Amino acid sequence: MKKLESYASGGWKAGEGGDTQLNALNGEPVAQVSSKGLDFKAMLEHGRKVGSPALRKLTFHERAMKLKALATYLSEHKETFYKLSAATGASKVDSMIDIDGGFGTLFAYAGKGRRELPNSTFIVDGAPEVMSKTGSFVGQHVMTPLKGVAVHINAFNFPVWGMLEKLSVNLLAGVPAIVKPASQTAYLTELVFRHMVESKIFPEGSFQLICGSVGDLFEHLTGQDVVTFTGSASTGHKLRTHPAIVRNSVRFTMEADSLNCSILGPDAVAGTPEFDLYVKEVVREMTTKCGQKCTAIRRAFVPRAQLAAVVDAIKARLAKVVVGDPSQEGVTMGALASTGQRDEVRKAVAQLRGSAELVFGDPESVKVVGGDAVKGAFLSPLLLLCDKPRDSKVVHEVEAFGPVSTVMPYDSVDDAIELAARGEGSLVASVFTYDNGFARDVVMGAGSYHGRMLIVNRDCAKESTGHGSPMPVLIHGGPGRAGGGEEMGGIRGVMHYLQRTALQGSPATLTAITGQWIAGTPRVEGIHPFRKNLDELQLGDTIKAGPKTITLEDIEHFAEFTGDTFYAHMDEKAAAANPFFGGRVAHGYYILSVAAGLFVQPDPGPVLANYGLDNLRFVTPAKPGDQLSVTLTAKGKNPRITENYGEVRWDTVITNQDGKIVATYDVLTMVEKAPKS
Amino acid sequence: MKKLESYASGGWKAGEGGDTQLNALNGEPVAQVSSKGLDFKAMLEHGRKVGSPALRKLTFHERAMKLKALATYLSEHKETFYKLSAATGASKVDSMIDIDGGFGTLFAYAGKGRRELPNSTFIVDGAPEVMSKTGSFVGQHVMTPLKGVAVHINAFNFPVWGMLEKLSVNLLAGVPAIVKPASQTAYLTELVFRHMVESKIFPEGSFQLICGSVGDLFEHLTGQDVVTFTGSASTGHKLRTHPAIVRNSVRFTMEADSLNCSILGPDAVAGTPEFDLYVKEVVREMTTKCGQKCTAIRRAFVPRAQLAAVVDAIKARLAKVVVGDPSQEGVTMGALASTGQRDEVRKAVAQLRGSAELVFGDPESVKVVGGDAVKGAFLSPLLLLCDKPRDSKVVHEVEAFGPVSTVMPYDSVDDAIELAARGEGSLVASVFTYDNGFARDVVMGAGSYHGRMLIVNRDCAKESTGHGSPMPVLIHGGPGRAGGGEEMGGIRGVMHYLQRTALQGSPATLTAITGQWIAGTPRVEGIHPFRKNLDELQLGDTIKAGPKTITLEDIEHFAEFTGDTFYAHMDEKAAAANPFFGGRVAHGYYILSVAAGLFVQPDPGPVLANYGLDNLRFVTPAKPGDQLSVTLTAKGKNPRITENYGEVRWDTVITNQDGKIVATYDVLTMVEKAPKS
Repeated sequence: MKKLESYASGGWKAGEGGDTQLNALNGEPVAQVSSKGLDFKAMLEHGRKVGSPALRKLTFHERAMKLKALATYLSEHKETFYKLSAATGASKVDSMIDIDGGFGTLFAYAGKGRRELPNSTFIVDGAPEVMSKTGSFVGQHVMTPLKGVAVHINAFNFPVWGMLEKLSVNLLAGVPAIVKPASQTAYLTELVFRHMVESKIFPEGSFQLICGSVGDLFEHLTGQDVVTFTGSASTGHKLRTHPAIVRNSVRFTMEADSLNCSILGPDAVAGTPEFDLYVKEVVREMTTKCGQKCTAIRRAFVPRAQLAAVVDAIKARLAKVVVGDPSQEGVTMGALASTGQRDEVRKAVAQLRGSAELVFGDPESVKVVGGDAVKGAFLSPLLLLCDKPRDSKVVHEVEAFGPVSTVMPYDSVDDAIELAARGEGSLVASVFTYDNGFARDVVMGAGSYHGRMLIVNRDCAKESTGHGSPMPVLIHGGPGRAGGGEEMGGIRGVMHYLQRTALQGSPATLTAITGQWIAGTPRVEGIHPFRKNLDELQLGDTIKAGPKTITLEDIEHFAEFTGDTFYAHMDEKAAAANPFFGGRVAHGYYILSVAAGLFVQPDPGPVLANYGLDNLRFVTPAKPGDQLSVTLTAKGKNPRITENYGEVRWDTVITNQDGKIVATYDVLTMVEKAPKS
Repeated sequence: MKKLESYASGGWKAGEGGDTQLNALNGEPVAQVSSKGLDFKAMLEHGRKVGSPALRKLTFHERAMKLKALATYLSEHKETFYKLSAATGASKVDSMIDIDGGFGTLFAYAGKGRRELPNSTFIVDGAPEVMSKTGSFVGQHVMTPLKGVAVHINAFNFPVWGMLEKLSVNLLAGVPAIVKPASQTAYLTELVFRHMVESKIFPEGSFQLICGSVGDLFEHLTGQDVVTFTGSASTGHKLRTHPAIVRNSVRFTMEADSLNCSILGPDAVAGTPEFDLYVKEVVREMTTKCGQKCTAIRRAFVPRAQLAAVVDAIKARLAKVVVGDPSQEGVTMGALASTGQRDEVRKAVAQLRGSAELVFGDPESVKVVGGDAVKGAFLSPLLLLCDKPRDSKVVHEVEAFGPVSTVMPYDSVDDAIELAARGEGSLVASVFTYDNGFARDVVMGAGSYHGRMLIVNRDCAKESTGHGSPMPVLIHGGPGRAGGGEEMGGIRGVMHYLQRTALQGSPATLTAITGQWIAGTPRVEGIHPFRKNLDELQLGDTIKAGPKTITLEDIEHFAEFTGDTFYAHMDEKAAAANPFFGGRVAHGYYILSVAAGLFVQPDPGPVLANYGLDNLRFVTPAKPGDQLSVTLTAKGKNPRITENYGEVRWDTVITNQDGKIVATYDVLTMVEKAPKS
């Protein structure tokens, strides 16, 4: 039997003694797990002193590229992971959700990181705030990486995805982590982790692993550390109130199993595609991972009129489920992670049966194909029916963390919303309906109780990612009983590992700190900034040009030439009646074109292209006779790692002869780096 | 003596018995405070059942307008509040910070709410996420108001601002509140609150008041409620671990007093403006509100070489402070809030003196002008000097919540950063320097420990809002010892009272729910959408126009006419060498103009103006001979409350003859509402 090692302070270390974890299919020992003897304080220090500075030195783009490299490396060893995953009781599909799902999250963050974050070590958050009359004092928020360690306490059901969905985010943020998988399935986490270390893609100290308990680690947490917890509410509550967490206001994100529900719309009667999709999804959520998903459908709410039809249809589908060793032909559902886990489910089902009738399956007996029916952790799918869900607390509170779901009737949209809310907060709720009005009512009525809401109909079902799947681009977490946390959600998740700081000072000071030119900072004129390459260009470099006089003839010519003969440009009387213009005005696009004509440098140079424009606002109309000038100032630079150029954003202001602002916008260009010598 | 009442479940109620609160200047009784006998559970229910639905029915703009009306109403009664404020020991300036500061926050959120939030009842958060190959399944985050109550536990030092800075935000979010001021100064909060109720501006149930303890209120909190706490860390920790908070994952925002520091830059030697500004600010922070500010400078770090000069300069300035009844001529500092509070400060100073030398003031004696020197809560400003700050824990941990500060030397920028970090997280740190490089190093090194960082120099000092002032547009809060919370920060603060929910479904379903047209939702062609007024216009209404052929002659003509003769338009050989174009291309602004010419409706109609454009990206270059078409689709409507028109955002896509996307952007227009009949 294998003795799992922890990866602590730069080396692999075995703990003393340890508990034995068994194969879910046959009860054979798989691995011994212990962290006894590890120096947990030293691990935190290693993360802070070695991992943190190394990660913080990298830019978001550099970290994102490492995520991609890591995902690619791990994908190449996928088969090894699949082999070991079988011991957890997982079917091939279950393993795919866990293993490929984890790699997919790494890839997703690799992409988001490069597309949506700057190529720098911190984030400029939001727009500058002018905080004074003359503009000499301004505010700007920035977000910098915490200098501590992310401690991830993971659940047994997703040994790979659970580790990687969290690591993707803290690594992209520039914060190292200590991963503590649940002992039951830690052997699979350890195997993947070993490959991560071997890959040498991330700097030493970026991640460490604890196989076994966390010992006295929590005692040594500070306000720069972050704890994430996925698992049972009771353990989560214990950790959340740990004295060091409370005393140091340690960020604590909790993601607990919740009484997720799925609602069948009143329109989705038997025979409609949505009815069939609903039945299929309930069964899928009951059987995938043997229902061991914190997002699984525990409460199925259906219109009272459809109750019998739904129950019959689910039963018919459940009757086709084949339980056993997934390596055997025809087996569609594997085992729970352990017999202990199965005992927990049986206990919960017994409680539910106080309020609900068991209408499918037997908690004590199931036909098993392959595997060891006695020592393996097999369980039949179990369907319950609760006819009076308003009279029961238990159906909204007790979670059977296995292939178990309870069907319940509702009487109106308000009733459905109220029943959903009785779960007191969940990770996800779904609605199966082709009536968008019903969908809207449910979302607006129940939204604040759920972290995610899925609306399925015939138009999207084929491509739907399903009720139970958290996606990297969407938040995962929920209020109340679901733990009150938020994970992933694209770049939102990265923010959990950064500290937002409001900076105040002179514009020039904040420009120097943030690397973003802030209005009020002196503009520097001299050589035309379009003649400077990306390395030569300084924030604040400015070209002022103009004036150019706008004539009525030009306006009319522009109208004729482009076809834009809007009355505000062509008809003095009609234009005078317009509340914004009070007379004929130049076309907005003509004003932009004139400005470009004023600031452009015709000959080839480092500015390669104008690839777009942001936040254009026309402030004062330009009238015939107006003289327009333009001021263009380098506002931000974002060199690309993989190209010989980068983005430059230019603050652009067009003014008239009275100094009034005609238009403001950001011009976006691609600018070459310095030639390589 | 006045018996304070609570405003509970729609009526004013006096508690049984109660503690007597004394005038800080003379020890005379001011008010008796008790909440005994109140039904706290009923108050929560009143907020949820009466206040919450009424507030949620309003749009953000409607709520913002009520904030403005409330601020205006309260401002008209300002003198009444100032009069009572004197009993708290506040000087005129102190009262202004509290009272006008509170009104200013209401005004600020009234403005932000209308400028930065939509005129709707919920927020569409971020961009849609395409989650499938064909685009039939997409994601979109929304944020809807929590359905519970915000419970604000406030500190004694800002009886007005403390209430209003929190209320502004939850009211704007659409969530009702229960305000519980600290008993010591609750009489002033109650007076202002009484005016708020009398104004009848907000619907009943929007806010309630508890004068006295919160009784069993916490027992009845759910995951839809929010608790904010401002005050001492020890009380905060107790509340944070309340079983109902833990069990229901109740959002808990804590803002605790912290060991804020101010750093004098090495460049700011005696004789520089920054040196003088620093000395002035340390003294101001010690004496304003008698140093009873959670943001006050407790630790003053100065270059070792400047230590003696700084101490001498601060002492000289402190010698001019006149303590007493602020209504007396010449008095510059009033009393602490109570003699109990003064005792606490004396205790803390005694602890600090274990590591630091008292160099100014006597904790037991001070000359008092006016007021009652025996019964009033007067205290001398006290300056301490700690020569070895690396050897002391107490100077970084113990807060004397009064006119007390400790000066300490540092030896290098890294030393300063490390000493700052020993506070283990604070609300604010400031840096006085004219060296932007030093400022940047300190911000990047210490940023993750502070919620706000202020950099003061000669250029911004005149307009600086100062070290100690939280501003509505910037976040207030800090990590670690400061409580880990975030308040205000403009619209960021509103998010604390909303639940983010990730929606998934077909584009048409998410369009129907969010009121934002999402790509993939069918486009509806028919009557030109520019001929429809704001009420008639439906999301998805579309005009497709074109094609129009781009000729080389047109490009050359446009170049000549506008002056934009960039080589990519004019010189085939040079353009061919450009990595993006590979030959001559049309001007981006010409493409925009052609598109406008295609979709515009020349005659007067409901579309009043094109006021701007967002997110323009040129995707594929347009070459001579290309045929351009444009598709314009109504994407979002935002009717204004106070005008007869509103904003309409149009999704715009320009394509070429091969169906390739040439450019995408949002056109922004003002469109008239239906004529009033």
